[in-house]
Amino acid sequence: MNTQEVAQAFTDMCKAGQSDEAGLKFWAENVRSIENMDGPMRVAEGIPALIAKGEWWYNAHEVHSVEAHGPYVNGDQFAVRFSMDVTNKESGERIAMDEIALYTVAGGKISEERFYY
Amino acid sequence: MNTQEVAQAFTDMCKAGQSDEAGLKFWAENVRSIENMDGPMRVAEGIPALIAKGEWWYNAHEVHSVEAHGPYVNGDQFAVRFSMDVTNKESGERIAMDEIALYTVAGGKISEERFYY
Repeated sequence: MNTQEVAQAFTDMCKAGQSDEAGLKFWAENVRSIENMDGPMRVAEGIPALIAKGEWWYNAHEVHSVEAHGPYVNGDQFAVRFSMDVTNKESGERIAMDEIALYTVAGGKISEERFYY
Repeated sequence: MNTQEVAQAFTDMCKAGQSDEAGLKFWAENVRSIENMDGPMRVAEGIPALIAKGEWWYNAHEVHSVEAHGPYVNGDQFAVRFSMDVTNKESGERIAMDEIALYTVAGGKISEERFYY
């Protein structure tokens, strides 16, 4: 699959509420996930680390809705915009999150995901 | 200015309809602009080339409205989402364009812009 095809298939799964399955299907073994923060939480590497990161996130938030928009493609990369309505379980605060995820594709797999917010 | 400050100032100018002025204020001398296409038009380099690219685009399109959303930040990069309502002058076709622009910042200036659509 080329980048456009990976982008479309991945985003279609996210739009269908299958973001977790999309990751498991398309992440490369050594995938890197990069947040906008300093310190040891900035980069997670490898599928087990990304699964753990996802579990942490779902444990910390009650998810009311997620919408995916895109994909937006350039070369070996594509972006997806996520609009999320979540409640932070610890603070009880309900938040409308809007973020851009940028994915880099190599050999039909996602080698990097980077989140902008 | 750090990346967050450049991102906010640049995006505020875009939201105020001053995208051209924002480029002239924040582009580095050797800024690179990268489209999603093959061939010699993929990369433009240097402020004069980016000005020429902008003039080509405005000559080819009648712009009815532009909305900028963001910024979305990660490390030394930020993204802006543009929603545009334009008519292609040659074909007469009116198009709703939705694209993500990703900017890389170095030394308070934009060293690269990359467009996803």
